[in-house]
Amino acid sequence: MKPLGPIPVGYAAIDSELAIAGRKVSNLVAEAGDTPLFVYSRALLEQRVADLRRAMPARLALHYAVKANPYGPLLEVMAGLVDGFDIASGGELAMVRAAGIDPARVSFAGPGKRDRELEAAITAGVTLNLESEGEAERALAIAGQLGVTPRLAIRVNPSFDLKGSGMKMGGGAKPFGVDADRVPALARRLIASGADWRGFHIFAGSQALDAGAIADTQAQALALAADLAAQSGAPLPHCNLGGGLGIPYFPGDEPVDLALVGQRLADEFARLPDALAETQFCIELGRYLVGEAGVYLTRIVDRKDSHGETYLVTDGGLHHQLAASGNFGTVVRRNYPVAIATRFGAPVEEEASVVGCLCTPLDRLADKAGFPRAEVGDLVAVFCAGAYGASASPAQFLGQGPALEMLV
Amino acid sequence: MKPLGPIPVGYAAIDSELAIAGRKVSNLVAEAGDTPLFVYSRALLEQRVADLRRAMPARLALHYAVKANPYGPLLEVMAGLVDGFDIASGGELAMVRAAGIDPARVSFAGPGKRDRELEAAITAGVTLNLESEGEAERALAIAGQLGVTPRLAIRVNPSFDLKGSGMKMGGGAKPFGVDADRVPALARRLIASGADWRGFHIFAGSQALDAGAIADTQAQALALAADLAAQSGAPLPHCNLGGGLGIPYFPGDEPVDLALVGQRLADEFARLPDALAETQFCIELGRYLVGEAGVYLTRIVDRKDSHGETYLVTDGGLHHQLAASGNFGTVVRRNYPVAIATRFGAPVEEEASVVGCLCTPLDRLADKAGFPRAEVGDLVAVFCAGAYGASASPAQFLGQGPALEMLV
Repeated sequence: MKPLGPIPVGYAAIDSELAIAGRKVSNLVAEAGDTPLFVYSRALLEQRVADLRRAMPARLALHYAVKANPYGPLLEVMAGLVDGFDIASGGELAMVRAAGIDPARVSFAGPGKRDRELEAAITAGVTLNLESEGEAERALAIAGQLGVTPRLAIRVNPSFDLKGSGMKMGGGAKPFGVDADRVPALARRLIASGADWRGFHIFAGSQALDAGAIADTQAQALALAADLAAQSGAPLPHCNLGGGLGIPYFPGDEPVDLALVGQRLADEFARLPDALAETQFCIELGRYLVGEAGVYLTRIVDRKDSHGETYLVTDGGLHHQLAASGNFGTVVRRNYPVAIATRFGAPVEEEASVVGCLCTPLDRLADKAGFPRAEVGDLVAVFCAGAYGASASPAQFLGQGPALEMLV
Repeated sequence: MKPLGPIPVGYAAIDSELAIAGRKVSNLVAEAGDTPLFVYSRALLEQRVADLRRAMPARLALHYAVKANPYGPLLEVMAGLVDGFDIASGGELAMVRAAGIDPARVSFAGPGKRDRELEAAITAGVTLNLESEGEAERALAIAGQLGVTPRLAIRVNPSFDLKGSGMKMGGGAKPFGVDADRVPALARRLIASGADWRGFHIFAGSQALDAGAIADTQAQALALAADLAAQSGAPLPHCNLGGGLGIPYFPGDEPVDLALVGQRLADEFARLPDALAETQFCIELGRYLVGEAGVYLTRIVDRKDSHGETYLVTDGGLHHQLAASGNFGTVVRRNYPVAIATRFGAPVEEEASVVGCLCTPLDRLADKAGFPRAEVGDLVAVFCAGAYGASASPAQFLGQGPALEMLV
C-alpha cells in the first residue's frame, strides 16, 4: 500500500462526510449541479494571509501570483487580502481588471511578452518586469508611441537558486530575467529614458519547504538588490523578493516554518544598507496562498477489479488535475492527499487506485492507496487543488471540457 | 549540442521557407491572422491512409481514434478516408456528429462513462465498448428504459502487452476493459439480453515503432479473439484489434515497417479459424493517421543571452505543446523535430534553446539544439504536432488561451 500526501489543516467531517466552510461536500455538489467540481474556501484563504501577516515583518507587502489560480471570485477575495498582483500574460491582465483590481497594484512578468501585451499593460499603468534588453527597448518604443510614461522594473536572473525548490528560477543560464551582471547598465538606461523606475524582481525558485533555505535566498536577494541599486545610481523604489514558499503535497512533506522565515527576514530588514532604507519590499506568492484552500471533487462512476487490484473510476481526471496525476514537472509519481469525501475519516478497509475517466494509463489520481471501501456514487476529494489545477490542466483532452468551480 | 527529432517526410522549402501543401508558412500565418497556429495538411492525411490501405489486407477496416485530434475540419476529411471512428466521451460524440459522421460508424471506449454519456450513445446507435461488468449492467438498464436495442461490444484487457509501446494497455491489472478470463461470461450475458452483439475491442498498447512487435501483438489479439469467441457461444461479428502504430518523434526513431505489419496480418487472416471466418476486423489509429500531418507554428518574440546560452523566446509553448515540452508521459526529455520555419533548410549556425512564453522552466520546445541564426519575428515549426497537441495541452495556463488551427 502506497502512502497518501498529508491532508491540509482546516478540513473536518460532518456526519462522516468532508465539509468545506462548514458545508458537506454532497451539498456543495448539489448546489453546483455536477461533478467534477473545484471548491475554494474563502475562510482558508483569509486564514493563510492572516498567518503570513502575523509572521512576516509589517514592512513586507504580499503579492498574489495570479497564475496559481485566476478564478474570478477567488481574485475578488484576494483583492481584499493582498497588496499587489503579479500577472504573466495579457489574458491575466484582462482577468484582474474583470475582478476590479486597480492596474496600479499589478506587475507583469513573463519571458515572451508580445507587443500587444506590452501595449495593453503600459496603457493600463501596470509595472513591467522586463525580461531582457530587447524587451526593454520594445517597451520604451511602445510607450513612446503611446505617449505614456511606462512603469518599468527589471527581472533579475540571480546567480543563486533556491535550494530544494521544485522549480529553480535562478543559478545559471535561464530564459527568465536579465543576468545580474548586465542589470546595472539596463537600469541606468531605463532611468535615463525618463521611465517611472520601479526597481527589481528577483525570483530564485518556487515550491520549497525548507524555511532556512527560503530565508537564505531572501537574504541573498536583499544583498543582490543592494549591490545592483548601488551600481544603478538611483534609489530603489521597489523590490520583489520572489516567492518560494511551498505547500506539502506528498507523504513526509512538512509545512514551511513560517515563524522562522519571518524572523530571519525581520533580522535582515533591521540591518538594511542605506540604499534600501526607503525601498518597498514584497514577496510574490501563488501556490502558498491558495493551494491548500482548494479541493477537487469527483464522483466514482465505476468500481472494478482487474487481476486482483481494485480501481475506483471517477468522472474526473488529469484533464483537471494534471499535476496530481504526476504528469507535470515531476519525475517520480507520488500520491497527493486524496480521500473518499463521502466516507471522510472512516478507517482504511482496502487498497485501491483512483483513476480518471480518460482512456490513458497516465490518468491516475491515487495509486494503490488505503481507503475505506467506496462504491459507485461516492465522492473522491483531491486536496491541494487550489493552485495549478483547473487552469494548468488540459481541460479539452478527450472532449471532456472544464470542471465546475465555486468559492464558499 | 543536442539532436533534434526527425522531420517527417512531405515537408519542403519554398524560397528558404517551410511550405505546407505548397504554401509558405508565413502566408498561412497571414491568412490565419496570428500565431501560434496549428496547420494540418489534407494531402498528408490522404497519403497516410493511402499508404495504409496499400500495405494492409483489404479485409482490414481502418478506424480513426478521435482523441488524437478532434478539430472539426480534420474530422470532416477523415470521414471520407476511414471506415469508422472511436470516441472516448460524450463530448467527442458531439464532435463527430457535428462533423456529419454517421453514429453507426462510431464506437465508444473509455473507463469512466457516465450514465448520461451511455444514454446519448445508445440513443444515437453508437457501439459501446464496455469496460466492466458494472458498466454493462448500467448500459443494459439505460437501454431498457429507453426501449432501444443497444449495440454492445466488450473491451478486453488482454494478458499480453505491446512490446516497446509508449503506453501499455494490457498485460496485468489495468483500469481498462474486462480481464480476458471474465469476458466469455459477460459476452454470454450480453448476447442473452437481446443486445446487438458487436464483439471485442482488444487494445494492448500504443506508439510502438517495432513492426515485428506490432505484428506479434496483432497475432496474439486474433488468437485471443478466437478463443473468447469460442467460449462465448456465438459468432464474432466484429473485432477491433487496437492500434499501436507509432510515429518517430525523437532522434534515432525509425518509421514503422508498414509492409511487414501488413504481410504478417495477411498471413494471419489466411489461416483464421472458422469461428472468425465472417468477422469484420479493424485497427484503430489516432496518432499514426494524423500526427505527422500537423505542424505547430510559433513566432520568436525575443532573442536573449544568459550566461553564454542563447534563448529563442516564442509566443507559443507547453500550453499548446505539452508533450513536446517533455511533460506528458515522458521520463527523460528529448527534442521533438523543431526547425526555424522561415530559414528552413539553412545550415546550422548556432546552438540555441527554443522556449515558450510561460513563466516556468518546464516550457521548453527545443533544448540546446543546432539552428540557423534566428531573429525576433522568425517563425519556429514544431513537427509531429497533428496528434495530442491542441486538445491535449493546458491551453488556459497563465491566461494564454488556445492556439489557432487550420487545415490546408
